[in-house]
Amino acid sequence: MPGDPRPIGVFDSGMGGLTVLRALLARLPLERFVYLGDTARLPYGTKSAETVQAYALQASRLLVSEGVKMVVIACNTASAVAVGPLTEALAPVPVIGVIEPGARAGVAATRNNFIAVIATEGTVKGGAYARAIAALRGDIRIVQQPCQVFVALAEEGWTDTRATHEAADHYLRPLFRGPSPPDTLVLGCTHFPVLASAIRAIIGSSVALVDSAETTALAVAEALEGEGLGSDGNAGGAGATRFFATDSPERFARVGEIFLGRPIDALSVELVDLRVL
Amino acid sequence: MPGDPRPIGVFDSGMGGLTVLRALLARLPLERFVYLGDTARLPYGTKSAETVQAYALQASRLLVSEGVKMVVIACNTASAVAVGPLTEALAPVPVIGVIEPGARAGVAATRNNFIAVIATEGTVKGGAYARAIAALRGDIRIVQQPCQVFVALAEEGWTDTRATHEAADHYLRPLFRGPSPPDTLVLGCTHFPVLASAIRAIIGSSVALVDSAETTALAVAEALEGEGLGSDGNAGGAGATRFFATDSPERFARVGEIFLGRPIDALSVELVDLRVL
Repeated sequence: MPGDPRPIGVFDSGMGGLTVLRALLARLPLERFVYLGDTARLPYGTKSAETVQAYALQASRLLVSEGVKMVVIACNTASAVAVGPLTEALAPVPVIGVIEPGARAGVAATRNNFIAVIATEGTVKGGAYARAIAALRGDIRIVQQPCQVFVALAEEGWTDTRATHEAADHYLRPLFRGPSPPDTLVLGCTHFPVLASAIRAIIGSSVALVDSAETTALAVAEALEGEGLGSDGNAGGAGATRFFATDSPERFARVGEIFLGRPIDALSVELVDLRVL
Repeated sequence: MPGDPRPIGVFDSGMGGLTVLRALLARLPLERFVYLGDTARLPYGTKSAETVQAYALQASRLLVSEGVKMVVIACNTASAVAVGPLTEALAPVPVIGVIEPGARAGVAATRNNFIAVIATEGTVKGGAYARAIAALRGDIRIVQQPCQVFVALAEEGWTDTRATHEAADHYLRPLFRGPSPPDTLVLGCTHFPVLASAIRAIIGSSVALVDSAETTALAVAEALEGEGLGSDGNAGGAGATRFFATDSPERFARVGEIFLGRPIDALSVELVDLRVL
């Protein structure tokens, strides 16, 4: 079977989803990507479900207009409310969110059937991780904690400052004290993997840390294989990524480096206006 | 002269501008207010000048359609780029921003002619404080520091946590070390007044702290008097405030309390869609 050289579309409210792109690039080196950060309207995490659904639909339509073969919602807030509507609206293009893979990995990791989930306010309030975990295994307890300040710390590049450690202590210490704390922590926001070492310093080495960027990359790889959509790289451009942002390409490139883990040329970031689509 | 009972319009990207409303309520107890938080699109601080101008125009048009006699831009980012365009677009309704009053108060406070300004990335990048201060007095040195994490800390209600002290230390210590540091610090973001005690702990008691909410309220009082627009309170409703938000009235009310310093009833917050205006 010949490979499918069309790119994979990835979108997020901003730059956090670049942790997912980073994991995708590592796992799928023969693929091409189109990444869209809706920076004019970030963050999604404090906005209502209706608003986020409307924004996600506009973002994914831009990706489809760029000829993508799959849409990855690299944003927990949008995944929580928009996987269903987008799957319907974009068919036959498959849509993959970050919640389901993260929930699956959390369930696989826990031994004491007690999982902690940290996320934005919007994701916690929507309860999507609780539902996804309950759908997989009914006997697992979960505790959720919104960690809104983590988003700003990650975007500032304060991955390991004293302020970050104090914020991690403030949010996480209460979750992990007590005689039988959770043994698994799901990072339910794509910004959070860059704070992993500060988080690890608070929760200790015995708690399993589930990075939904990694687990989503695995889910995408499986879906590509399952649907025969993988690229063999023969058409060229393996690993190439086009970047779109809805505002401030300069900031996208500068802050994006933190999440992607490598430089982004601001001049290569294309500015688009989703409101006119 | 009879009083003008029309309300004063105040807008911000979200809830931070409620520190300005709080100062206005204290200084102008006979006035009525309409406050709009553009919560669906916050924060403005990381967005481009063009985008912020377009949003500010939509927000102020809603206020004008509510019959306000003056528009207060209770947002540094929007004040930095939109006072001119709004003054032109809304004439004869006067427009007052927070930058000019803050700059004036900073210039009045400094003795060593060296002022520090902390603000969002957008405000610092736009250089509006530097320009406003230079226009008042050409011989004043200024140093600017974007403090993006402060916004998240303030919105989380972490007004005085260890994380807040560490963040203040990270941002401010470098500005105030050295043999001849600034003797004045302008809080160039309406979120920052709620962090004053953590900020004060780092900068010490000898530095003058300029709160642009207070200075803007004074400027509004002077403008009302100058233009004969003040209310005598005889039409009733003194101190009454209508609240509008573009998303999540529940979050507006909950987070807004931190900045307004008193409870807001979420049911009293009216949801509006600026995109259709």
